[in-house]
Amino acid sequence: LERVAILGTGLIGGSIGLRLAADPALRTVGWDASSDAAELARSRGAVDEIVGDARAAVAGADLVIAAVPGDALAATFATIAGAVATAAVVTDVASAKVGAVRDGEASFGGRFVGGHPMAGSERHGIAAATPDLFDDASWILTPTSVTSAGAYGRAAALATSVGGRPVAVAPDVHDQLVARLSHLPQLLASVLVDVAASAGDRDALLRLAGGGFRDTTRIAASDPDLWVSILKTNREAVLDSLSSLEQRLSGVRSAIERGDWADVRAGLARARAARVDLFAKADVGGEPMVLAMSIPDRPGVLAEVTTAAGELGANIEDLSIFHSPEGGRGRLELVVTGARAAAALASRLADLGYVVASGPKT
Amino acid sequence: LERVAILGTGLIGGSIGLRLAADPALRTVGWDASSDAAELARSRGAVDEIVGDARAAVAGADLVIAAVPGDALAATFATIAGAVATAAVVTDVASAKVGAVRDGEASFGGRFVGGHPMAGSERHGIAAATPDLFDDASWILTPTSVTSAGAYGRAAALATSVGGRPVAVAPDVHDQLVARLSHLPQLLASVLVDVAASAGDRDALLRLAGGGFRDTTRIAASDPDLWVSILKTNREAVLDSLSSLEQRLSGVRSAIERGDWADVRAGLARARAARVDLFAKADVGGEPMVLAMSIPDRPGVLAEVTTAAGELGANIEDLSIFHSPEGGRGRLELVVTGARAAAALASRLADLGYVVASGPKT
Repeated sequence: LERVAILGTGLIGGSIGLRLAADPALRTVGWDASSDAAELARSRGAVDEIVGDARAAVAGADLVIAAVPGDALAATFATIAGAVATAAVVTDVASAKVGAVRDGEASFGGRFVGGHPMAGSERHGIAAATPDLFDDASWILTPTSVTSAGAYGRAAALATSVGGRPVAVAPDVHDQLVARLSHLPQLLASVLVDVAASAGDRDALLRLAGGGFRDTTRIAASDPDLWVSILKTNREAVLDSLSSLEQRLSGVRSAIERGDWADVRAGLARARAARVDLFAKADVGGEPMVLAMSIPDRPGVLAEVTTAAGELGANIEDLSIFHSPEGGRGRLELVVTGARAAAALASRLADLGYVVASGPKT
Repeated sequence: LERVAILGTGLIGGSIGLRLAADPALRTVGWDASSDAAELARSRGAVDEIVGDARAAVAGADLVIAAVPGDALAATFATIAGAVATAAVVTDVASAKVGAVRDGEASFGGRFVGGHPMAGSERHGIAAATPDLFDDASWILTPTSVTSAGAYGRAAALATSVGGRPVAVAPDVHDQLVARLSHLPQLLASVLVDVAASAGDRDALLRLAGGGFRDTTRIAASDPDLWVSILKTNREAVLDSLSSLEQRLSGVRSAIERGDWADVRAGLARARAARVDLFAKADVGGEPMVLAMSIPDRPGVLAEVTTAAGELGANIEDLSIFHSPEGGRGRLELVVTGARAAAALASRLADLGYVVASGPKT
């Protein structure tokens, strides 16, 4: 039996546990800062057993999933560091990755792999957990130059086993992107509600608020504590994205003030094209293709290859490393979805100096 | 037969026409700057006949509905002014009302009533028109101190006859509210897409863009020409709302920079409460109640009473004015939905000096 420790049995940890419960080869141990939440997780079947402290939960575990709030990660890692087995893999699920990876690698070195499942709910806690939360969602992994291939493979297998699609992205790129795609929209929705609510009473607002306002402000109803924790851990990237937004807004205001309607129109047209393109039906299907290459036995290769795939949008279904018995070099095999994505990735890897053989998976 | 002229047979004008087509007591005449659009409106049954110039369309009409783009209203009013019958009522459907009312009253005096149906679509043009577009939507009317009671009544009856709920709001209040509820969210959605699109390539963005980003940016796919026309006609209020937003955003940025998380949390919590409250199930149902009052025969009374109802969210289902044969005073009867709304309105009207009798409609 493989032993999996789930630290934090809320929406994400609980949903992972509910899905893993179907696998008879695993035994899950849960811990939560709230013993009520832990007990509820056990009674719902999200974990096989619960223990009262985090060190006891990770003792003897092969895989540790830290699903505590992002601003509690550093303290959790410090607590469990001495108790995690030297062969165990540790991963997390926090919404910001630069700090999480820094803290995780400080405690666990190459056995830590940062993770961020792109799934959630306006609801939170174990009561909202569901085994299908991650179905077809991207599960971001953030390997670095120190990440071991075995740890990456185990984290990717976890993502796949709960229904997600693992995608590798560098930690700093991840944080800049989620700041713009998630954290900034959250702040803006709140500020928009505030600006509107200050301008009239509820009934007048309600008469005039159309579907557009309803859509753009829906996320303003999310949990403030959760969001403060997220903003705290991604502070730098959020501030960057805010500055970028403020600069563009001031450009729009100045164009409206000048009456430069051609400029205003160009901005709206550019954004329209980008929005339509972004959510145009993505080409994610296709045949599984194998890419095989010889790799030097040095740190950083795995992160280089997997983040190249992540940036191209190539979906890595499977990844294996075979070490040469003579040492010095090894062989990496990737399974990627679709011939087009495989060709794009092979070309990018060739630019990086790898010699890649590819063909349909048989 | 009452004769109705529809100037501009696009999404709004065409949808009005399609709904009015069911009324055998009306004959509709359409005109559009695009003769193809006019011909298509006729062939779809949105108007009984089309004519090639706007003056011919309004000649002999009892009701003129100007459904041209907001930035074309002033020119349209100037064109038709001499051709509209002296007893005819003129209304419009533009998204900004201060300028529309100024221009409309300059040409037609108290026979002009500004209107803004709160219904639309990301699609536009006669091809997107549908007879149920206005069902259950608020149809804002913006009477002023010069609006005649007869003109207001005819415009409100038009709104009701196509399925809408007429609500009176002062033109400047309307423009400030729609700037915050519609025009500012539109600009922000575009700027957000722009900030995100500049931060990564399409595939990386798509992997990380969740439902929140999809919701907050949906309206960025709207028609840029339509939006430039709207922003142009509501320029002052849009600039006001932009300033207000920029000020609040800079406050949020400064709190994040200082690490004042209690302040950030308070802002998020306030917005959450306002958002939840705003879209909480509104109490719009109830029995029809009659409010009756004696009114002085002076301009402005009607705007005072109807905008008081609009501000309270009281839904005026019907409105009649009976002039006293001796002159000097008249009697106003309103039918309002729901005992609570009727009581609130009666109390507000009492504060304004009216003596109001109320009771269930029999």
